[in-house]
Formats: sequence, C-alpha cells, structure tokens
Amino acid sequence: MQQQDGLLSRLRRGHEQLVLDLLRQHGPLSRGELGARCGLSRTTLYDIVGALLANGAIVASAPEAAQRRRGRPVERLALNPGAGHAIGIDFARRAVHVAAVNVAHEVVGSASEPHGPDLGWEQRIELAQHLVGTLAGDSLGLGALSAIGVGVVGPVGRQGDGPGGDSRWEALPPLLRERFGVPVLVDNNTRLAALAEATWGAAAGGGDVLYLRLSHGVGGGLVVGGALHRGAYGLSGEFGHISVEPGGAPCECGGTGCLETVASVGAVLGAFRAAGGRADDVPSLAAAARAGDSAALGVLDEVGTRVGTVLAAVSNAIGPGVIVLGGELATVGEALTGAVQRALTARLLPASRTRVDLRAAALGEVGAALGGIALVLRESPLLSHYPVPPGLEEPGEDSP
Amino acid sequence: MQQQDGLLSRLRRGHEQLVLDLLRQHGPLSRGELGARCGLSRTTLYDIVGALLANGAIVASAPEAAQRRRGRPVERLALNPGAGHAIGIDFARRAVHVAAVNVAHEVVGSASEPHGPDLGWEQRIELAQHLVGTLAGDSLGLGALSAIGVGVVGPVGRQGDGPGGDSRWEALPPLLRERFGVPVLVDNNTRLAALAEATWGAAAGGGDVLYLRLSHGVGGGLVVGGALHRGAYGLSGEFGHISVEPGGAPCECGGTGCLETVASVGAVLGAFRAAGGRADDVPSLAAAARAGDSAALGVLDEVGTRVGTVLAAVSNAIGPGVIVLGGELATVGEALTGAVQRALTARLLPASRTRVDLRAAALGEVGAALGGIALVLRESPLLSHYPVPPGLEEPGEDSP
Repeated sequence: MQQQDGLLSRLRRGHEQLVLDLLRQHGPLSRGELGARCGLSRTTLYDIVGALLANGAIVASAPEAAQRRRGRPVERLALNPGAGHAIGIDFARRAVHVAAVNVAHEVVGSASEPHGPDLGWEQRIELAQHLVGTLAGDSLGLGALSAIGVGVVGPVGRQGDGPGGDSRWEALPPLLRERFGVPVLVDNNTRLAALAEATWGAAAGGGDVLYLRLSHGVGGGLVVGGALHRGAYGLSGEFGHISVEPGGAPCECGGTGCLETVASVGAVLGAFRAAGGRADDVPSLAAAARAGDSAALGVLDEVGTRVGTVLAAVSNAIGPGVIVLGGELATVGEALTGAVQRALTARLLPASRTRVDLRAAALGEVGAALGGIALVLRESPLLSHYPVPPGLEEPGEDSP
Repeated sequence: MQQQDGLLSRLRRGHEQLVLDLLRQHGPLSRGELGARCGLSRTTLYDIVGALLANGAIVASAPEAAQRRRGRPVERLALNPGAGHAIGIDFARRAVHVAAVNVAHEVVGSASEPHGPDLGWEQRIELAQHLVGTLAGDSLGLGALSAIGVGVVGPVGRQGDGPGGDSRWEALPPLLRERFGVPVLVDNNTRLAALAEATWGAAAGGGDVLYLRLSHGVGGGLVVGGALHRGAYGLSGEFGHISVEPGGAPCECGGTGCLETVASVGAVLGAFRAAGGRADDVPSLAAAARAGDSAALGVLDEVGTRVGTVLAAVSNAIGPGVIVLGGELATVGEALTGAVQRALTARLLPASRTRVDLRAAALGEVGAALGGIALVLRESPLLSHYPVPPGLEEPGEDSP
C-alpha cells in the first residue's frame, strides 16, 4: 500500500497546486469559477479547497452584496497574503546569504553578510535570523505556511543514507526548526544554485540544465526535467572530482588529478604565479588577461580547455539543453569562456554542437539562497506536509 | 492553460493507474471495495471507472446471486484479459527482437531473428510481424488497448527537435501503425535496454541506473528516478563519444579518441591482433583470456581501465546507485570487469566507492524489446491516449 499512498499523496498535492496556481494567475475566484477552470469534480474541489482554507493557504473573502445571487452569498477564494513566506538561506564557507518570497511567489528581497571561516552554527544561524529580519521588517511574518530551504557546503544525502562523506550539516535542521519554528529542507548549496539558475536565472525555464561552479572549490548540479537531480545517494553534480590528469596532483577528496586540482581559484592563481604572473585574486588575474598578459592568457586557455573537456563528457552523457558557468572564475570573461566553448565544440557530439548553449550564471552570490526557495516551492511542504491547525479539522465547506 | 491541462491529464492518468494497480493486485473488486482502498472521492472514482470500462481496459462481471444485498446486484470490476497487449520490437542492426506482455503486465514471450545488414524497413516490419505471431499464436490479439514500443539504432529526439544526427527511423512509426493498427512509441534501442535492466533486469527496482553497452558500437542509457532520461534533445547516454584519448583515432561521429574507438568489439579485437593475438570474435578473445594469454589479458585490462575511467566520471556527475555493463564484450568476464571495477574504485568519489554497484546485464539480446514494453507501460498510452470507442461515450455507471 505504500506505493499507493505515495501516489495518492502526489495526486492530492497536484490538486492543491492546481487550485493555488489558478488563484495566483486569476486573483480571487468563486468555487464555481474555480471548478470551471480546474476541471476537478465538485467533490474533489470542495475537499481540496476545504483543506487549503483549514491550513491557512487561502482565505475566503466576505461576500459582497453585488455578488449575491438568488439570495445566497457568492464567496470568493484568494491566496492568503499573511500565510507566510518561503525563505532560502545559504550557509556558505565564509558568508550567510538569505532571500525570501511571499506565498504568491514574489521575491521580497535578499541579503548577505560575510563572516570568518570558523564561525559556529549557533552564530551563523543568528546571523541568518538577523538578515531575514532586515528583508522586510515586521511585515515578514513567519506564518503557519512558511518553510526554509537551506544550502550547505558538502554532500547532502537523504535521511537514512548514512554519512555522505560529510555529515557536519546534520546538526543544522533541528537548530533552525527550534529558532524559526518552521519546517527545514537542506541540500548542497551548489546544487541549489543550479536549481535557482534553472528556475529564475541564466537557464530560466530550461528543463535540463548542467551548472558548473568554478570557485574555491569546483562543483555543480544537474536539473533534470525541471527538478533537482540528487542521484541515488545524494552525490550527483560532483564535477570537480572527475579525473582530468591521471597521476596528477592529490585532491582533498583523496583522489588525484581531479578537475578541482586544476580549475579551482587557488589552482588557477597558483598556475599563473608559476608561469611568472602576479595576482593574489581573481580580479587581478582577470585584469592581467584583459591587458593581454601572455601568462594569464595561457593559463586561462589551458584551464578552459580542461573545463570544456569535462563539460563535453558530461554533456554527451546527459544531453543538457543549457550549460551554466558560475562562481568567481566564470567572471574572468572571454579568455576563459572562449577556451571552454572551443573545447566543448570540439568534443560534443556533432548533433549537440549547435544546440547546447553555454551561458554565464545570472544570480550571483545569492543564487543558492534563491535555490533554497525553489526547493521549498517545488517540494511544497508549504501545502502538503502540514498538520491541520487545531480547531480547524472539519471546516464547513460553504460557511462564510 | 497548457501547464494546467498537462497537470490535469497527469492526475487523471495517475488515478487510472491507481485503479488498475488495485485490480492487478487484488483481483476483481466491487466499486465499494475499490473506493475503500483507493481513497478517491466517489465522484472521481466513478468517473475513472466509467472511462476504463468505456475504453475496455476493465470489465464488469455479471453479479452473482450470493453477492446481492438489499436486492441490488453488487457488480465486480476486473482487468479485461482481452484488452490487448503491449509489444516491444527492437530493430537492431542485423536482427529483429520482439517481446510481449498482456494487460496484467505478464510477459507472454519473446523471439529473435537475424537478418542481413541491408534489409529494408518493409521487410524488417514483416519479420517483426511474423515473430509477434509466433509468440502466442491466435491468442495474442491486438485489441483496442495494445501499443508497440520500438527500439531503433541511433539518436531519437522528440518530434519537432529536427534531425538528431540520424533521422532514418522517422519512416518507421507510420509504417508500423499502418501494419499493426495501434499506437507506436520509438526510442533508441540502447536506451530501451537501460530501461529494461532497471525495470526487470540486473538493476530491477533501481531508481538511478547507468547502463553501458559494449558491442559493435558503444552507447548506453540513464534511468533517473525510475524513468528513462532523454536529455534536452534526445541525445543522452552517448557514453561512446566521450573523449578518452586527445588526438586519438578518428571516430565515425566526427570526433577523435572517443571511447568507442578503443572499447568497441572491433577496436578491442583489433588491439588484440595488433598485440600478436589471434581472435575473430569475442568468444575467441574470452577463451584466450581464460587461458591466461598475456596479450588478451593486457588488452582487456587496458580497455577495462578506459571504460572504468569514463564510468567513474559519469558517476561522479550523476550519482547512480547501480552501473550495468551490457553488450557482447561484457560477457568476456573478470579480465575486463575486474579492470573496470579497479578503475571505478580508484576514481569514484570516496563516499560513492562502497555504494555504487557494478553488475552484468541480465536480459541479453531481447533487452531492448523488453525496454520497448517498459516504455509503453510507463507512458501509458494504453490507458490515457485512447479515444473512447463509438457507442460507449456515456456508460451507465451501475448498469450490469
């Protein structure tokens, strides 16, 4: 029966989503208007509407005299603006980023704050709570339908998968639930950035997206059919640990010659300095490249070729429509991305060459926080995982 | 509204599947028993049951006297054994393979027939029709609910994608529809073999499966969350064209140094002969390896390392639970698979090493035909895409 329960719960969630989508698109509607638009049977529609009223996702407006027909008030249903917000928090290595949307999926705002590398969870959560408070002041109430999507560094498996190579984040959800009092979903922050780029960013509306982030670490994420792909054990998107140099430099993952050992910020700056260049950070390297410095151009060409080769291999395997390049190094510009594009073109299947589109990430440092929101909205704990508030278990279907 | 139509049609298909699953598991049930088990509202259930009766997927049994209560007959519903079959056909390069299941998803049988490489579509379809006829004689009726899932060689995009590098298969569906008179779904036969292994074979029940086929060509398929992954343009699973040797041998795809240029049957036999070995086919090579021939062992170790390296790269990207190795070369045994496993272990992320399971394909040469069936059953054209037969548009819900 477990499979059937799963199917029933998916069907019910789909019904709820349909009703909410209609109210989001059309504004307030009567039950009759909803019925005509959603195609659900009267029984099913009234059941769904009753549940949404009960958990506070929608509200029934006071009937206006003009709307009365045959003496009976025509009640209109609308999204509940006070129902709460979906909040995304990215606990990056040295910063906290937050973003929030309201129940109508409108972005309320975003904010970031850097911190030292050794800050504890309690302090980072406090920082996040402060930032959330700055977004919209008192108007940002955490209502009964709020939820938080959280990005963390390192692999995140499903509950019960056991340690995924890094279980440091597992203390986080209970702490957040205690502080914010709402449900918490967690995923790897680079994967969340991928989901955000596929939802609101460079690949908005793209069903199949490959996102590669070139930063202090190298990682990424896959969006398949519009949803985040996690893999069997929560270990997908580990592009940084694809081997590109047999017998190459040791990687912190325990392997050797991983892409991360040649294409991280540290590795690229190191290669530039080894070639006689002088740069302590990515903007200096980018400036050298723009000035035509041959060492900078040589290093970036070599790195871009490595990156493009890995992207071509993964693309031939999974066939994405869009490849998004993010992270600090992606801001260097043509010297790097030109080489990536050339290696891609040379190694992609001919039938894919003119189709797979390479784009720069659009959402910047709050990408993963926005991805936390996208995760919450996709998985809809807002709507389906909530207990019905006490006293509202049996709402009268047509009561005013 | 398109999105809502899509959602409604998915919901409806889910409801139909739920009712059919219950009848498959429990045998004949009354509407009341169905209602108690499926949790659907009475209105929705009667609506779904009416549609399934109308299109012939289920039948209503004559009520028995013992079941009458309060003078009213209790009708029981059951799967219609005469509703038709799902048929899978694999049009491989030099053979036609067929398989069939009945409406209860029981495999009726499978059959294969080799042919020359230049046989035309008309003749190959005739061969398929003959083979289908041998499966169950006259009892294999193609009823109103039958459908055919077809595997072909080469890339298969969605309609409207334009030529996917090989559009030779596009003449096929109209010819098959004309001959068999039922709907036809087409996909790449190697991808269908992947779906079959994930449904009934070596990775049965596995949600995330990577399938690699080492045969005259090298290809594969990905199953993500239990469904076949197609990629944005129908070009996923092209593992054979991942570059493994920069500047290596030219590949028929137009690239150089693709995995196919070192790991196809022809390439491996060629490498063995170049090393002084003598073998015209895979069984001879396997025999040489079993006899301890050092040239055979050396070549297979080298090829296995290449294959394992590509599998590790793709696995780090997508995080499969199971890797299935199929095709003629996979039958060579330990000399190859041992090297694949060693390279995998060396290059997989440490957290994945003990989890990702390498297995030999289990379904042999009819795998792709079985995959055609899996495709048909998953996409359920059996149930949802059918027009209601004339005269049955408005079935009485409780009529005997």
